[in-house]
Amino acid sequence: MESGTSRLEAFSDGVIAIIITIMVLELRAPATADLHGLLQLAPVFLSYVLSFTIAAIYWINHHQILGLARRVDARVLWTNINLLFWMSLMPLTTAWLGESGAAPLPTACYAGVATLCGGSFFLLRDAIGRQRAEDPAFQALNRQMARKNFVALAIYISATACALVAPAASLVLCALPALMYFLPTRESWEGPDR
Amino acid sequence: MESGTSRLEAFSDGVIAIIITIMVLELRAPATADLHGLLQLAPVFLSYVLSFTIAAIYWINHHQILGLARRVDARVLWTNINLLFWMSLMPLTTAWLGESGAAPLPTACYAGVATLCGGSFFLLRDAIGRQRAEDPAFQALNRQMARKNFVALAIYISATACALVAPAASLVLCALPALMYFLPTRESWEGPDR
Amino acid sequence: MESGTSRLEAFSDGVIAIIITIMVLELRAPATADLHGLLQLAPVFLSYVLSFTIAAIYWINHHQILGLARRVDARVLWTNINLLFWMSLMPLTTAWLGESGAAPLPTACYAGVATLCGGSFFLLRDAIGRQRAEDPAFQALNRQMARKNFVALAIYISATACALVAPAASLVLCALPALMYFLPTRESWEGPDR
Amino acid sequence: MESGTSRLEAFSDGVIAIIITIMVLELRAPATADLHGLLQLAPVFLSYVLSFTIAAIYWINHHQILGLARRVDARVLWTNINLLFWMSLMPLTTAWLGESGAAPLPTACYAGVATLCGGSFFLLRDAIGRQRAEDPAFQALNRQMARKNFVALAIYISATACALVAPAASLVLCALPALMYFLPTRESWEGPDR
Repeated sequence: MESGTSRLEAFSDGVIAIIITIMVLELRAPATADLHGLLQLAPVFLSYVLSFTIAAIYWINHHQILGLARRVDARVLWTNINLLFWMSLMPLTTAWLGESGAAPLPTACYAGVATLCGGSFFLLRDAIGRQRAEDPAFQALNRQMARKNFVALAIYISATACALVAPAASLVLCALPALMYFLPTRESWEGPDR
Repeated sequence: MESGTSRLEAFSDGVIAIIITIMVLELRAPATADLHGLLQLAPVFLSYVLSFTIAAIYWINHHQILGLARRVDARVLWTNINLLFWMSLMPLTTAWLGESGAAPLPTACYAGVATLCGGSFFLLRDAIGRQRAEDPAFQALNRQMARKNFVALAIYISATACALVAPAASLVLCALPALMYFLPTRESWEGPDR
Repeated sequence: MESGTSRLEAFSDGVIAIIITIMVLELRAPATADLHGLLQLAPVFLSYVLSFTIAAIYWINHHQILGLARRVDARVLWTNINLLFWMSLMPLTTAWLGESGAAPLPTACYAGVATLCGGSFFLLRDAIGRQRAEDPAFQALNRQMARKNFVALAIYISATACALVAPAASLVLCALPALMYFLPTRESWEGPDR
Repeated sequence: MESGTSRLEAFSDGVIAIIITIMVLELRAPATADLHGLLQLAPVFLSYVLSFTIAAIYWINHHQILGLARRVDARVLWTNINLLFWMSLMPLTTAWLGESGAAPLPTACYAGVATLCGGSFFLLRDAIGRQRAEDPAFQALNRQMARKNFVALAIYISATACALVAPAASLVLCALPALMYFLPTRESWEGPDR
């Protein structure tokens, strides 16, 4: 089923590449050709930078976790499509966040979608982990990844709750897992037995 | 002709990934940053969820059926392009369905395009079935898939007719084949002799 | 340089898939939920059908001709990018054709871009033909393809000239090469010595 | 880690293909169906031509440099994502450049993003160069590429500064590196030891 994995990767790559790129469509050219027009772009631009970073990190970790899958079974297939669904909402929440200038409800929706993406990644990682239940080297790695994933989820949930009272603090929280996931752990990137 | 199959798959993946993702472009950020703005998004959002699910299921089944093709002959090539054409209309009918709040004619068009996608998939499956006419194991599987495909088509046709008098019931019908196709049969996903 | 060819194919597939799919973005959901709204979509829809067909045929023939390339040299690289550039203008001319209801100048631009795509394909085919100058089987095929390509070009040039006086006749002419190219010749699809 | 490289290439191809193609979305069909409408498109069209060429050249050079990577390490991964980020801003600056008719500030932003793309490519090339520190044939080539890259960067920086006083001259400067990079050096395209 190698070809199964590679087509799943190619499809996911396509969807993630388009998600990243259509967010740029929200960056409309300023109406005036002066500094004022450029500065008005700032909140939308900053929300784009945050979302680009988060999506890029998901791509890297998705790449890494699928590289560890033994085959594409129904559970992997559907947890992967579930992840892509929630990621596909990122352009919407990013646009709302930027256009509203980080108002409470849009920020909560932004953090909420980030929470659901994190949870979906948790399920995908778990689905792949089940394929290697008897591989102790993988399980040690899997536990380590699960812990990191769990911390990120807790931060996203806090960010969602926090958004309604302090949107700026919520966005700082949203950026934390990005920093934490900045680099996949060296071991997992190489893969334990590939 | 392995490379022929893989390039056809890659192209179809690209088109389906873009179809799925541009539907999200119809999900415009709410005009106001409050709950009212968010709730106004509901009908467009629900039509997006239904279409995302249908498109994802087509992708899975497309993946599965092309994996069984022996080569890319002219019939496979054109039935595949025909399927992609009808799928490419999904963003249009999805947007109309959502924006009209499931009015009768938009719902009928939505179900009608679903019918044409189902019919196109029938033709593609049949084109691949002809390549393996003398393979009894494949033919047993092919008959089983044809039956499932036929039931889905009948439901979509009913949904199209039903839409003009009861749009809500039509949408429930449209969701049924999605549930039915939720999982490819285990045998076909693995492939009979790969 | 196999990997060179495959990455050039993958990139071209991506660009062509997106070109095909963004044309559907011009198909905006009708403003009203009745038959009147649907019928107003007709000219834009018909121009989409024509362009989808032309783009699909280019994809098939592009697939076929690149399958015959021995390697990616600078001439193949740039004639390929040149073809993609002119194809990338198809969404623009398709939208103008549909929105103007096939007025003379938009129709001439539509046929003009088709002419430039046809000419670019001619150059790409020629660049690949040079790589196999001493292969008589390929050269017989190449001459046959060049003839077909030449006829298509002559028709597109006539369509461009014709558009300014009789746009409807011009569009009929534009559809002719599509019919002619409907199927790649069986020999070339399989490839002479692959 | 071959598969790592190929998935990184595929993802980058996807992003670059979409960047190239969404720029065409800024080319809106003229409001009127006459020559006046067509001529009004000219500045947006010319900015599209320049950006398409620059993006195509980045794709070619990206293709070439990744073909020389031994593996995907964290440095290659992040310098590549950094390059894609700055390239993803090209549709925005291209639209602003075209819509403003090459006013000073939009031209400076256009040249500024080109500078950042050039600098990002420098970092990516350097990250791959580190993987082959003990390969003298590669290092000779690497030095030659670094020199070309450095000249391009210097021109882009001049273009950015120049834009505020003479936007037309700035655009001529922006086109120079494109000409210079028109063809990858023959040696590097083939790759030294592949």
